[in-house]
Amino acid sequence: MASESGKLWGGRFVGTVDPIMEKFNSSITYDQHLWEADVQGSKAYSRGLEKAGLLTKAEMDQILHGLDKVAEEWAQGTFKLNPNDEDIHTANERRLKELIGETAGKLHTGRSRNDQVVTDLRLWMRQNCSTLSALLCELIRTMVDRAEAERDVLFPGYTHLQRAQPIRWSHWILSHAVALTRDSERLLEVRKRINVLPLGSGAIAGNPLGVDRELLRAELDFGAITLNSMDATSERDFVAEFLFWASLCMTHLSRMAEDLILYGTKEFSFVQLSDAYSTGSSLMPQKKNPDSLELIRSKAGRVFGREDKEAVFEVSNTMSAVLQVATGVISTLQIHHENMGRALSPDMLATDLAYYLVRKGMPFRQAHEASGKAVFMAETKGVALNQLSLQELQTISPLFSGDVSHVWDYAHSVEQYKALGGTARSSVDWQIGQLRALLRAHQAKSPPHASPK
Amino acid sequence: MASESGKLWGGRFVGTVDPIMEKFNSSITYDQHLWEADVQGSKAYSRGLEKAGLLTKAEMDQILHGLDKVAEEWAQGTFKLNPNDEDIHTANERRLKELIGETAGKLHTGRSRNDQVVTDLRLWMRQNCSTLSALLCELIRTMVDRAEAERDVLFPGYTHLQRAQPIRWSHWILSHAVALTRDSERLLEVRKRINVLPLGSGAIAGNPLGVDRELLRAELDFGAITLNSMDATSERDFVAEFLFWASLCMTHLSRMAEDLILYGTKEFSFVQLSDAYSTGSSLMPQKKNPDSLELIRSKAGRVFGREDKEAVFEVSNTMSAVLQVATGVISTLQIHHENMGRALSPDMLATDLAYYLVRKGMPFRQAHEASGKAVFMAETKGVALNQLSLQELQTISPLFSGDVSHVWDYAHSVEQYKALGGTARSSVDWQIGQLRALLRAHQAKSPPHASPK
Amino acid sequence: MASESGKLWGGRFVGTVDPIMEKFNSSITYDQHLWEADVQGSKAYSRGLEKAGLLTKAEMDQILHGLDKVAEEWAQGTFKLNPNDEDIHTANERRLKELIGETAGKLHTGRSRNDQVVTDLRLWMRQNCSTLSALLCELIRTMVDRAEAERDVLFPGYTHLQRAQPIRWSHWILSHAVALTRDSERLLEVRKRINVLPLGSGAIAGNPLGVDRELLRAELDFGAITLNSMDATSERDFVAEFLFWASLCMTHLSRMAEDLILYGTKEFSFVQLSDAYSTGSSLMPQKKNPDSLELIRSKAGRVFGREDKEAVFEVSNTMSAVLQVATGVISTLQIHHENMGRALSPDMLATDLAYYLVRKGMPFRQAHEASGKAVFMAETKGVALNQLSLQELQTISPLFSGDVSHVWDYAHSVEQYKALGGTARSSVDWQIGQLRALLRAHQAKSPPHASPK
Amino acid sequence: MASESGKLWGGRFVGTVDPIMEKFNSSITYDQHLWEADVQGSKAYSRGLEKAGLLTKAEMDQILHGLDKVAEEWAQGTFKLNPNDEDIHTANERRLKELIGETAGKLHTGRSRNDQVVTDLRLWMRQNCSTLSALLCELIRTMVDRAEAERDVLFPGYTHLQRAQPIRWSHWILSHAVALTRDSERLLEVRKRINVLPLGSGAIAGNPLGVDRELLRAELDFGAITLNSMDATSERDFVAEFLFWASLCMTHLSRMAEDLILYGTKEFSFVQLSDAYSTGSSLMPQKKNPDSLELIRSKAGRVFGREDKEAVFEVSNTMSAVLQVATGVISTLQIHHENMGRALSPDMLATDLAYYLVRKGMPFRQAHEASGKAVFMAETKGVALNQLSLQELQTISPLFSGDVSHVWDYAHSVEQYKALGGTARSSVDWQIGQLRALLRAHQAKSPPHASPK
Repeated sequence: MASESGKLWGGRFVGTVDPIMEKFNSSITYDQHLWEADVQGSKAYSRGLEKAGLLTKAEMDQILHGLDKVAEEWAQGTFKLNPNDEDIHTANERRLKELIGETAGKLHTGRSRNDQVVTDLRLWMRQNCSTLSALLCELIRTMVDRAEAERDVLFPGYTHLQRAQPIRWSHWILSHAVALTRDSERLLEVRKRINVLPLGSGAIAGNPLGVDRELLRAELDFGAITLNSMDATSERDFVAEFLFWASLCMTHLSRMAEDLILYGTKEFSFVQLSDAYSTGSSLMPQKKNPDSLELIRSKAGRVFGREDKEAVFEVSNTMSAVLQVATGVISTLQIHHENMGRALSPDMLATDLAYYLVRKGMPFRQAHEASGKAVFMAETKGVALNQLSLQELQTISPLFSGDVSHVWDYAHSVEQYKALGGTARSSVDWQIGQLRALLRAHQAKSPPHASPK
Repeated sequence: MASESGKLWGGRFVGTVDPIMEKFNSSITYDQHLWEADVQGSKAYSRGLEKAGLLTKAEMDQILHGLDKVAEEWAQGTFKLNPNDEDIHTANERRLKELIGETAGKLHTGRSRNDQVVTDLRLWMRQNCSTLSALLCELIRTMVDRAEAERDVLFPGYTHLQRAQPIRWSHWILSHAVALTRDSERLLEVRKRINVLPLGSGAIAGNPLGVDRELLRAELDFGAITLNSMDATSERDFVAEFLFWASLCMTHLSRMAEDLILYGTKEFSFVQLSDAYSTGSSLMPQKKNPDSLELIRSKAGRVFGREDKEAVFEVSNTMSAVLQVATGVISTLQIHHENMGRALSPDMLATDLAYYLVRKGMPFRQAHEASGKAVFMAETKGVALNQLSLQELQTISPLFSGDVSHVWDYAHSVEQYKALGGTARSSVDWQIGQLRALLRAHQAKSPPHASPK
Repeated sequence: MASESGKLWGGRFVGTVDPIMEKFNSSITYDQHLWEADVQGSKAYSRGLEKAGLLTKAEMDQILHGLDKVAEEWAQGTFKLNPNDEDIHTANERRLKELIGETAGKLHTGRSRNDQVVTDLRLWMRQNCSTLSALLCELIRTMVDRAEAERDVLFPGYTHLQRAQPIRWSHWILSHAVALTRDSERLLEVRKRINVLPLGSGAIAGNPLGVDRELLRAELDFGAITLNSMDATSERDFVAEFLFWASLCMTHLSRMAEDLILYGTKEFSFVQLSDAYSTGSSLMPQKKNPDSLELIRSKAGRVFGREDKEAVFEVSNTMSAVLQVATGVISTLQIHHENMGRALSPDMLATDLAYYLVRKGMPFRQAHEASGKAVFMAETKGVALNQLSLQELQTISPLFSGDVSHVWDYAHSVEQYKALGGTARSSVDWQIGQLRALLRAHQAKSPPHASPK
Repeated sequence: MASESGKLWGGRFVGTVDPIMEKFNSSITYDQHLWEADVQGSKAYSRGLEKAGLLTKAEMDQILHGLDKVAEEWAQGTFKLNPNDEDIHTANERRLKELIGETAGKLHTGRSRNDQVVTDLRLWMRQNCSTLSALLCELIRTMVDRAEAERDVLFPGYTHLQRAQPIRWSHWILSHAVALTRDSERLLEVRKRINVLPLGSGAIAGNPLGVDRELLRAELDFGAITLNSMDATSERDFVAEFLFWASLCMTHLSRMAEDLILYGTKEFSFVQLSDAYSTGSSLMPQKKNPDSLELIRSKAGRVFGREDKEAVFEVSNTMSAVLQVATGVISTLQIHHENMGRALSPDMLATDLAYYLVRKGMPFRQAHEASGKAVFMAETKGVALNQLSLQELQTISPLFSGDVSHVWDYAHSVEQYKALGGTARSSVDWQIGQLRALLRAHQAKSPPHASPK
């Protein structure tokens, strides 16, 4: 008889259950994470039952006390799972019954499993988003601090992995920090939609017993309540949104890691990872591999395309680790500014050469072509672009004159980019200021401790 | 010589290009959609160049006039593409040069292709999001209207495709409308992040020529400007966000379509699609297939997992068609309320039977088991649950008495679910009110016409 | 000093490692599955080293003996992991050293970690594919047996969830069995490409120490050896192929589950799941949910789109459970053939009515239209299609005569479909024969025990 | 009246169809590709109908002649689509009726649209797989030829983008060629499963009119016939398999492209793309971007995760272009072997230094640690690894003696890797031989012209 096995659906079943099916159906291995949220949700619900007259004050106190005991066991690692505990909700109620007896059976009145699962999940994710939000801000702050400190280092900006234009090293850091700041903003939006109370929705039709959902909302400190009971128990948009947020954030971290892997190769030699973020090879003694960066990059694959509740726990853990490792990497990274400087080459000023002609009145398309011809001439002659003589340049355009020599100055080149968002010193300072202001705003919206009463 | 072919990179290339490679590299077949945005962006940029002293007033006027002519040709369908036009930006500038001569070559001064592409894409997507927003609100409004009109129709609520509890038909409609309202909210957030000006970021280092980005922002009516030039030209978060938005919205439409397909089967017979949204079979003369619903469901597959710019155009078109078809389906759908009523059966009130015992003081877990035993007894005897005699029920629990007969009333059952979000009449009315308020708020944030000057 | 910590890369590192990074980098929680394969691979490799003169006979025996001891500890559950064991390979070698001393340090000569990892993974997956192959054949056999036993049951075939044509119940079973038989064929192909030896590829350049790869292949009973050492250590095509195989197989199981969920609804009432594969509701006492089928369907989502090595272990477990549960479901399913029979309706013979006219000489397109008119006429008059009088039919086409009454016989309708693959009794028998022959052939190619010496 | 509009489902519909729905439902824009396959399939089917006595010889000839005319119009570009042609099948039959009159209406007897669609798709894909197979073999052959010609060029092998061990340039080429050879094998397997006849399956129950499926198979030159009519018309495993094949092949091409992009940077300078496969920048005159390689890499994203029939056409085109561009890139690529040689550095021989100690009797784990110490010592002293004096080395291990100087020879290092699959000259020659043999075998299985009669 199934009722003897203590399964929740009680008196009806006469067959026995295929054990593979039972194991298959069980979620306790991963939903244990929810123990605290489950206790919080049940405590609030028992208060709701009491207000609705379905529990006496004494019964409620008995349940609240019992739930505190359950929580204590979890916190101290003494909670013992039974083989029959198929999920955290069953386990907690089973234990509550052992502790306080039959009154425990009143706790689930008017509540469905879905009701309970989704409430717990939202409580857990809300807390988790706050934590991730803080870790993300910490990473961004580290990056902004570093960008501020190293504003005077120039190095090549690349497009298509080809050297493009001289830029500030800080400009590169900030380009990644800006992307992460968008992630920070999005995380707040996701958290806002997580922070909505579903409890009181029953299985599908709602709660018929006069439970006051506004009381439940206030008890659990949710920002709003769900509008429709069918939607409330079945929708998992907030899970999809969270996983999408993680995917996009990992894409950004992954791109930053990819750049750093490249900048750390022997061939580039711009940066050097701290030993704390490198590993060796079991075969080749000289190897020092950028494993932290490769892991960040590869973890992106584990975050993409996950869809289920189980993924939430794994993806949250991954994000937490990745954000901390990334912060560690950035804060301990060594840069080789001499190598960075040496990597700047006159052909990266070909755009400036074109602008030189533009300033003399030539339309840009013609100036671009003229500058291209100069590059080709230098390549053909096997000399650097700035070593073409004035006569040689004048065979391309008569507009070239002696002042062309002023073009060949990297620091001067960089200082031209004063438009907002550019790589000039003033513009980099403006970016730093903007990011600091956004960080302050984001942190104000996600207080460090948001745990319910 | 490549320079003769008029390619933008001009004087440098000496080889010729593999024609497969050229075709492969060309995006003109799909980025034509951007013609209007490209003209708008170029007009604003030429104003910026004039203010920065890089164009005279006369040159600017010449360019503005030429661009208007280009736009006119596109609008009238007379614009002729050349085989060398690899994208819409090249095509428009090539045509401008034919119309106004060498001055056209000044337009690209300090602007990179990426700068231009991403500005155009944002302009196009901003407009498109406004359109989709309006279509989505129209669908939600249709659903809410219908929910209001048919509030008194009861039918079975299902979980796991098993009959669960009696609910209102409107409750089902509203469960889907609520999900779509979240999509509407998210679309506004995506639009906010699309509505940021990248122009003035150059290739990577920024704009060195004194172009005033605030002027560009105002000209193109963007809400803000991008913070970092490297990030601005390379990031496509807003594309990923839009595609994710479309995926989630399609998931909701797809689930609604799935329910309706089922409700329209011979076996359920709850609803009937209008002929305008059905098709027949080429082989079986009696078939009337719910093709509109199946297409909505299958289009979801085409929206998921797309990642590229090309996807934006296709996904936008799909969403536009799907939203309109869904609105048509909902507004013309016929419901069979007699069949809906007939599908309600006494075993769906087993939860109410348990609550009956709860109200007599039995803990819910025991009441659940007792009601389960009654269901099993009725099944074993081959009678409906409400046909068990009082004596029979009392063998299960002595708490059953004559007033148990009041349980067997579907309308009364439904009216119990008065907690906010439930299926009681008052609660459904509250939902309708909430959704109408949200619709008004969303429409206020997304004005129908948001095209730039 | 890192060398003191016993890390494999030994003497070089001077920093200490971020503990989050270490945990992040560790794979021991999931690659423990490989313990047996790792011992097998190391035993074979020590034989290769002995043949190449890099181990003496005595050293080899010492290593072989030590590895057997390691395996014994794993098998008996007494193997103790150290916190420093970052993966199964490090753990096993660490333990070997504790057991036999410094000689253990010779085992890794000329072998890289990648070399070892990919060899172990191929060994494990080869064994696992054999197991899954056997489980899949068992499921198919159960389905074919059932199809044979229930050949005489007719029920509606559906397209677009609309009743289409009468078919045999066996025809439905076989349609799913045929799909699974393709999965069985594909699994053999995947196994063939898994069954290739990479060992002896070193880190990247190959093995420089005269190890005989043909000896390694024979020791580990691989079917072939990899062609290029760089490709051998880095490629994971076989993982992608296995995961794709699992996705496709899950798609098939998922579709079958979806049909059965529908057939088991109150509205269809064609089949009834065994209690062993159902669960109840914590709130609604009358509910009996098809959880086994829903789990099969939902597990599909967890199989799709996984990409990493970790996924192999999880997906393998899922497939193993799903195949066994599906076999259980099919073998215990009860069918209600009276309900199936009652669900056949005359309009499902509209195609036969068209064929009647075709046989009288009317082109099919006209016959299809005529039959469609008859359906419309019956619907308009509110009668069944077979209740239209001959006079009424003759208003549509004069070709109708008294023998039209022979059309209204479901068994006769079904028997017409004698072309190979159709639903006639003879054709169903042919399908059963074909599938039995394929099952025999597949099992011959995947012997139940394929473990290496 | 729908019947007047000539829609296939004829006489039944009384509503009119929402035009958005019609457009939404139409597939003619992409399934036009199938025109030739559709004519082939219909010709074979009309032969089947004649043999079954459903067409007279004269009617069959009329239909065959008419279909040849339809094909001629498509081939000459004179076929005119009507707005009502929702797919290629409707279009061709509509045109056939215009050409030969009412007899055209007999062609669809006993055939369903699904029957026809899936037959056409298989015919088209079979032909397409043959073409892609030939292009893929051409690319592999180009790579093998190049590997053979440049066997003597050494360069750094990388792992984790760190210089690992000296290898042959040919070894790198062959590592990619081997991966593509697996793709070639898989494509043959996919083609085998595409090459199965579904025609004669009707809508769901099979074909009731005595059509001989073996005749249809022979007419269309299929290798086998489908086993179950329900499965035959609904399964699209072969589409999923083809798309998966394309994904995996693109992954390989993408990785090769990624390596080449890196090898072509200023920092690496190992290879130089032909101008025919590069493009410039619209802003920076000196830029020469590896656009062909970046397109190959980015097209991978467009191939992944597609699921629908439409994807087949697009993915096939992409694969065809990508394979040809890749062949062009590889055949025109210039290599700089002096730079390759210069990139070899003594620390890449640290593994050889460990092996030196192993050969003197030290266990590998100790030798690895000793060599690691030497690397650290050299780094600390700021000298190259081969510039440590014998005395210095002996402080690490007394086993070092004068012959250690023989270690510092790159050519000698490479020649050690003689085990099959390694980078020694003999082993590279063996790889070339193996690949040439596989190419011959694959081409034998996929004859260049496999078009049906």
